[in-house]
Amino acid sequence: MKLLFKNADIYTPDGVVEKGFLAVEDDTITYVGTVRPEGVFHTEKDCTQRLLLPGFVNAHTHTAMTLLRGVGTDLPLQRWLFEAIFPLEGKMTAADIRAGAALALLEMLACGTTSFSDMYFHPAEMAELVVESGIKANLNYPVQAFDPADTYEKNSSARKLEELWKTCHATANGRLRIDGCLHAEYTCNADVAAGTAAWCKNAGGRMHIHLSETKTEHEECLARHGLTPAEWMNRAGVFDVPCQAAHCVWVSESDRRLMKEKGVAVVHNPSSNMKLGSGFAPIPQMLDQGITVALGTDGAASNNTLNMAKELHLASIIHNGYHGDAALLRATDTITMATRNGALAQGRDDTGELAVGRKADIVAVALDRPHLTPCVDTAGLVAYSMQGSDVVMTMVDGRILYENGEYLTLDKEKIIYEANAAAKRLMG
Amino acid sequence: MKLLFKNADIYTPDGVVEKGFLAVEDDTITYVGTVRPEGVFHTEKDCTQRLLLPGFVNAHTHTAMTLLRGVGTDLPLQRWLFEAIFPLEGKMTAADIRAGAALALLEMLACGTTSFSDMYFHPAEMAELVVESGIKANLNYPVQAFDPADTYEKNSSARKLEELWKTCHATANGRLRIDGCLHAEYTCNADVAAGTAAWCKNAGGRMHIHLSETKTEHEECLARHGLTPAEWMNRAGVFDVPCQAAHCVWVSESDRRLMKEKGVAVVHNPSSNMKLGSGFAPIPQMLDQGITVALGTDGAASNNTLNMAKELHLASIIHNGYHGDAALLRATDTITMATRNGALAQGRDDTGELAVGRKADIVAVALDRPHLTPCVDTAGLVAYSMQGSDVVMTMVDGRILYENGEYLTLDKEKIIYEANAAAKRLMG
Repeated sequence: MKLLFKNADIYTPDGVVEKGFLAVEDDTITYVGTVRPEGVFHTEKDCTQRLLLPGFVNAHTHTAMTLLRGVGTDLPLQRWLFEAIFPLEGKMTAADIRAGAALALLEMLACGTTSFSDMYFHPAEMAELVVESGIKANLNYPVQAFDPADTYEKNSSARKLEELWKTCHATANGRLRIDGCLHAEYTCNADVAAGTAAWCKNAGGRMHIHLSETKTEHEECLARHGLTPAEWMNRAGVFDVPCQAAHCVWVSESDRRLMKEKGVAVVHNPSSNMKLGSGFAPIPQMLDQGITVALGTDGAASNNTLNMAKELHLASIIHNGYHGDAALLRATDTITMATRNGALAQGRDDTGELAVGRKADIVAVALDRPHLTPCVDTAGLVAYSMQGSDVVMTMVDGRILYENGEYLTLDKEKIIYEANAAAKRLMG
Repeated sequence: MKLLFKNADIYTPDGVVEKGFLAVEDDTITYVGTVRPEGVFHTEKDCTQRLLLPGFVNAHTHTAMTLLRGVGTDLPLQRWLFEAIFPLEGKMTAADIRAGAALALLEMLACGTTSFSDMYFHPAEMAELVVESGIKANLNYPVQAFDPADTYEKNSSARKLEELWKTCHATANGRLRIDGCLHAEYTCNADVAAGTAAWCKNAGGRMHIHLSETKTEHEECLARHGLTPAEWMNRAGVFDVPCQAAHCVWVSESDRRLMKEKGVAVVHNPSSNMKLGSGFAPIPQMLDQGITVALGTDGAASNNTLNMAKELHLASIIHNGYHGDAALLRATDTITMATRNGALAQGRDDTGELAVGRKADIVAVALDRPHLTPCVDTAGLVAYSMQGSDVVMTMVDGRILYENGEYLTLDKEKIIYEANAAAKRLMG
């Protein structure tokens, strides 16, 4: 199957190719350039006034929480969690998870997300959806241990994670990957953490964790263990495995040095950090240090969308505001965070940029819109002016999953109906 | 002409009316309720899965700067202004202003803005567009005086403002208003400022100013005059006229007390303040004091859009992040900032909320979209989840100006073509 995009502006690692050609053979990009490539194409797509971008990678989310979108709006953080979110999460069945995750897929594909890293319960439901829908995902089962006497061998969440790995890792032509996962320091003990890290290292997997999201979490860990959450994770061996750490708002300078040394990727979640009052992650400093920083939406309960264009915009401007420097973050850097760095954080070196040999995870953005006119600076338009709704096509592994408002692998009306029904049942 | 919206969720000052009716007669809302009103309607619009909101008021912008969208991206503030923006502004003709402003109208109507306060040169071109397009606007001519010896009587910008007032104020059935305007303290002298304020007071007008946008501006004023910009404006009599002050990032605590006492309305521009590194305006404190706070986009060169849904989202979350408090700003408060408070800042007490007797400045939002599902909390959806592109109808004074992607008073293709041509000419 050979497909040719023509007359497209193409966002590549080396700059924007104007009025260019991009060829896809099966699941791979085989040509990018200004001259029409040789050969016969089964499909040719005219992309006049279209910008081709690498697909967004949502590197930290809890997709099924779309069902809890808007629950407990404007409550203080602890009351929001304990009075609004946790009681409803306790009631969520596997069917609810499936309904919420399917809704999330609709939302993500429409806004140009081609891959996501999820952390939630009932991942088997999610795995089915990933396979069916054609999207890419790194799933996990979050390991937790609330009993101090719990051990890795006895821990039931660790068993679920191992089982998930066995049945699902590196399936669906590699679209579906399973990561190791510790929910966080404050929901685990040292033995279970060390056991999970050791298992993951041995299996050849990667770890996905929450790290120093709130000041309270960071300081309570220090009080409890005399270690920062990063030091605690490192002592448990978590950083001896490739690791993506979500939030990292309160990591210290020495934490950052440690994370750089260990190659830990950071996932920045600006909407969630702002809305929940968690604070400003030291992203400019991390970029200066050469830490791989990716972007995520966090769950829809704390965001309240899964719209990576919004995260990209926020990440591009809030640090300027916080540090009083208009030139702090560049549009090209934040776009890399939303695309290539996300792919790297997921262990997917074969995607995240539009270049020959990379997987065809491609998004088309309509440029013929008032708010994207004139096109003086393409990266600036993407970072500062684009809305998620400007995406008119989302392709994963060479397969179009969303185009001009239509989903090719998902039944939008049915999914919205079922999500509303599930939400009503939960709140009722 | 009588029109009935039916089966609509209606965002009113007293909460959301579900599956309700809203009647419009000519330019005025005549009914809001759950029971179908008596009478015959020329048009009935089914609003199943639609939310009716008051139109957004963009209370501070420079519309024609859409032509400069993306110019000088990621430069430091002073270099951005002096090397990128000012040289191009110097080249802009009246025709360029018209092209940029028309582009801005497309963008604003598509995102649900029904009224805006502009500050820019060649306002006569803008006035024509306002009349033709059907939107509401408060225009002005920014008075500036760079020569310390300049007086109000000799100042040419003051003459242009007076002339604009005479020809345009309170025309187009009140849709078009002219405000007095001082660009800022740092671009004026005391005599010209006092003269402008006195003229405006005598004419029965309102003032629109920039105030303490940057730390440099605030501190240089203190050094120059021993007064803060607010104190300097007050001494010139500006606050003895109803006044809307844009930015107010660096106003002091005593400035805020003064502004509250004098009834000065503040216009918050979060995207611009973040992107340009200006800082965090003390919005939560102002709201606590009972100051009227409205929202604006600033110009597209520093934002880089005129999308009020983005401003609403930013205003709703960044202060939580800055102050570490998830419960600081409520969705209902920031929606009021984006609607009713904007109308009040413009001196338009007759609009900005959906209630009987108010002008029919109404926006319809499509709720049947994945990212607006489920609808647990309507205000939360609007503040945290809505995209500007969720607007499917924009009505001003009872007249539909935009519906389902179509403009009823503007030629989209022609305007985009001319804006691109003007931008190309400017940059060439």
